[in-house]
Amino acid sequence: MERRKAVLIILDGVGDRANRNLDNMTPLQYANTPNLDRIARESVVGLMDPISPGIRAGSDTSHLNILGYDPYEYYTGRGPFEAAGLDMDLMPGDIAFRCNFATVNDDLVVVDRRAGRIKEGTEELLKDLNGIWIEDVQIFIKPGVEHRAALVLRGPGLSPAVSDVDPHDTGVKIHEAKPLEKGAEKTARILNKFVLLAYDKLKNHPINKSREERGLKPANIILPRGAGMVPHLRNFEEMHGLKAACVVGTPLIRGICKIAGIEPIEVEGATGGYDTDMIAKMNAVLENLERYDFILVNIKAPDLAGHDMDPRRKVEVIERVDHAVGYLMDNLPEETVLVVTADHSTPCTVGDHSGDPVPIMIHAPDSRREGSEFNEISVTTGSLRIRASDMMNLILNHTNRAEKFGA
Amino acid sequence: MERRKAVLIILDGVGDRANRNLDNMTPLQYANTPNLDRIARESVVGLMDPISPGIRAGSDTSHLNILGYDPYEYYTGRGPFEAAGLDMDLMPGDIAFRCNFATVNDDLVVVDRRAGRIKEGTEELLKDLNGIWIEDVQIFIKPGVEHRAALVLRGPGLSPAVSDVDPHDTGVKIHEAKPLEKGAEKTARILNKFVLLAYDKLKNHPINKSREERGLKPANIILPRGAGMVPHLRNFEEMHGLKAACVVGTPLIRGICKIAGIEPIEVEGATGGYDTDMIAKMNAVLENLERYDFILVNIKAPDLAGHDMDPRRKVEVIERVDHAVGYLMDNLPEETVLVVTADHSTPCTVGDHSGDPVPIMIHAPDSRREGSEFNEISVTTGSLRIRASDMMNLILNHTNRAEKFGA
Repeated sequence: MERRKAVLIILDGVGDRANRNLDNMTPLQYANTPNLDRIARESVVGLMDPISPGIRAGSDTSHLNILGYDPYEYYTGRGPFEAAGLDMDLMPGDIAFRCNFATVNDDLVVVDRRAGRIKEGTEELLKDLNGIWIEDVQIFIKPGVEHRAALVLRGPGLSPAVSDVDPHDTGVKIHEAKPLEKGAEKTARILNKFVLLAYDKLKNHPINKSREERGLKPANIILPRGAGMVPHLRNFEEMHGLKAACVVGTPLIRGICKIAGIEPIEVEGATGGYDTDMIAKMNAVLENLERYDFILVNIKAPDLAGHDMDPRRKVEVIERVDHAVGYLMDNLPEETVLVVTADHSTPCTVGDHSGDPVPIMIHAPDSRREGSEFNEISVTTGSLRIRASDMMNLILNHTNRAEKFGA
Repeated sequence: MERRKAVLIILDGVGDRANRNLDNMTPLQYANTPNLDRIARESVVGLMDPISPGIRAGSDTSHLNILGYDPYEYYTGRGPFEAAGLDMDLMPGDIAFRCNFATVNDDLVVVDRRAGRIKEGTEELLKDLNGIWIEDVQIFIKPGVEHRAALVLRGPGLSPAVSDVDPHDTGVKIHEAKPLEKGAEKTARILNKFVLLAYDKLKNHPINKSREERGLKPANIILPRGAGMVPHLRNFEEMHGLKAACVVGTPLIRGICKIAGIEPIEVEGATGGYDTDMIAKMNAVLENLERYDFILVNIKAPDLAGHDMDPRRKVEVIERVDHAVGYLMDNLPEETVLVVTADHSTPCTVGDHSGDPVPIMIHAPDSRREGSEFNEISVTTGSLRIRASDMMNLILNHTNRAEKFGA
C-alpha cells in the first residue's frame, strides 16, 4: 500500500444557486470547464456541507472544519486568525481583535471607518502602542494591509465575550465595549482604556498632523471588532500524520493555517484578489510537493464574484480556475491525490455566503470513477454526501494513510 | 439579500412502499402529478428521515422535529398536544391525557370503547367534573369531537410515567393506572381516583338515563390514555425569527402548533378527512401570507388512505393534492419559498406509519434545479438526504434568513 501525498484545492465560495442570467444554471454548470470535468470523470464525487445542512458557514469556520478542528469547539471569533495571518506571535488564551484605523471628530463620532484608506505610516503610528501594559494585561498591535490592523490582549482573566468598539457605521459615536457575559468585564474595561489611550497618542501624532496638512483624513483612532480567544489547535501534522503547507492569499485562512502548524508558502503574484496569478500558485504546489505530504490551496476569486453578485465574472473566474487546475493535474506526480471543493457557497443571487452544499471530487489513480461534470447538480449522482468534518478522514483514506479501526 | 417567506406543505403520511396493485410503484410514482413534477424540476430535492433511518415516527414527533423541537427532549406522550388542540389552557408541567367516553357494565368491564360513538351531550356530562380538586391537584377536562376528550392534571409532584386506564379492548375490565417509574405513584393514584369519581357522577347522569331509555349506550366512564407532560417549547418566532401560522385540521398537530406559538388559521371546509377542501386551505395560505413569514399546511388525507390500506384511494387523494399544490404555486408571490414533504410514510401495504424516508422538495426563485418527478424514487438523485431536524435550517437558508456562523 503506497502512502500518497494530497493536494486540496478550495475554490472559495464557488458553490452557487440557479441564476436567471445563466439560463437558470449555476456558474459552475454554465462555465466551460473541460479540465474539472475530465478530473470528475475519474473521481469520487458528491456534495459536502461545510457545517451541516442549511448552516451558513464563514470561510474561517469552514476551513477549521475541513482541517479537522470542530468550529463549535475552537471558534469564538475571527480576531485570532486575522492576527495570526499577520504573523503575530500568539499564545492560546490570548484575546485578539480585527481593527480598523478610522477617523473620528472631537466627540468621537466616526467620520471615516477607514481613515481615508490610509496606506502609509501605520507601522509608525502604532510604534508606541505595541507592547504597552494596561493593568496586568499586555497589548500587542500590528498593522495589516492599508487601514487594517490586529490587536492582541494577553493576561489573566480575559474573555472573548465583549462587544465591538467599531460601530460599523459613520456619523455615530464609537461604541463602548460591553461584556457579553459574566467574567468579561475586565476585558471590556481594558479594551475601552486602550482605545482612548490610543486616541490620545494618535490624535496629535506627527504623521496625522502631516496628513491633515495634506488634506487627508487622520488615522486618529483604532476600532476593534470580532473578538476571539486564540484556541489551542492540536498540531495538524501530529493529528493527521501529514507534513503540511498552504498556498493561501487571504490573511484569515493563512492565520488558521499558522495556528494549526500548516506552513504558509509565499507566492509572488498570489494576491487573494481577482488578479491573482493562479498558475503561480499551482507552480508553488508543484515545487513544494516533495517537501510536504499535504498542501492546501485557497483560491479566493470565486467568492469575490459571488459577493459582487456578478455571475458573468464568476463564470470567467471559474474558467480561469479550470485552466489552472488542468495545468496542475497535468504536472502532478501520478500517485498524488487531488481534491477539489469549496469552503461554502456564495451565490450571486445572494451576495453573501449561503447554507447550500458544495461540490467535491477526490481524484486518485484508483479512485472509483463516478463523475460526469464538476458542478453542484451533476455530482449529486456520486457517492459523497458528507460534511466537511469528514474531509480529513477521506483524504487519509485515499492517500492510503488511514489507521485501521479494528482487525 | 432579500428575506423571503416560506410555505411548508406536509402531505401527511404520503410516503409509501412498492405496491403490487400499482405495478410495484408507490402511490406517488403511480399517480399523475404534473404540478408536483413541474415544481420538482425547479427544486432542490431528496429524501428526509422524519427522525433517523428506520425509525417509525408519529405525526406528533415528526412535526415537532420538523419545527425544530427535538422529540426525544420534548415528547413524553400525545396527551398535551391533543389537549392544546382542543384549545385548553395549558401550563408547562401539566400532565395531559387523551380520553374516550366509553360504556362499562357494573363490574367496570368495557362494553363499548366509544360509548356508541356519542355525538351530543358530552359538554353537559363533563360540567361537574371540570375544575374539581383531588388532593392538591386540579383537574380540567374538555370534550372533543364525538366520544373524544382531553384531561389535564395540574399540581405539584406529577409525572407522565403512568400506564393507560383505557384497556384498548372490549370485554375486559378497565385498567388501573400504574406508575411506570418511581415518583409517578401520586399521579397514578389521582388518576384512578378521578376515573372512579367520574364513573360515580356519570352512571346516573340524566343524559345517560335518557340515552339508555332511547336504547343508546351510556357514556358512563372516561378512559384516559397517552399521558404526557406539557413541554416548555421555546416560542417558534423567537427561535427562528419567523412569524408563523398554520393551516391544520387535526387537533394533534394543531395542538403542537399552539404550544409552539404558531397561530392556527381556521378554514371552513378543512375537515382533516378525505372530504377536506384543499383549495380552501390553499386560499387561506394566500390570504394570510402578507401577515406571516411562515405558514405550515398539513393535509391529512394521504395518511388516511394509508391507514385504510387503499392504494387506489391514495393515488386519487394524491392527484387532488397535486391540483391544489399547483393552484397554490400559480398564485404564490414569486419570491416565496415552497417546501413540499411528508411527516412520515404510511404505506398501504402496512396500514400504519413506517420508518421509510419521505420525499422533499424546496422551491425558490434561485434554488438549484435538481428534480425530475416528485416521488420516493426520482428524488434520490437530488442533493438532500436529511433528517427532519435539518428542516428549519434549510428553510432559513432558502429564505435568506440564516445567521452566518463565522466570517
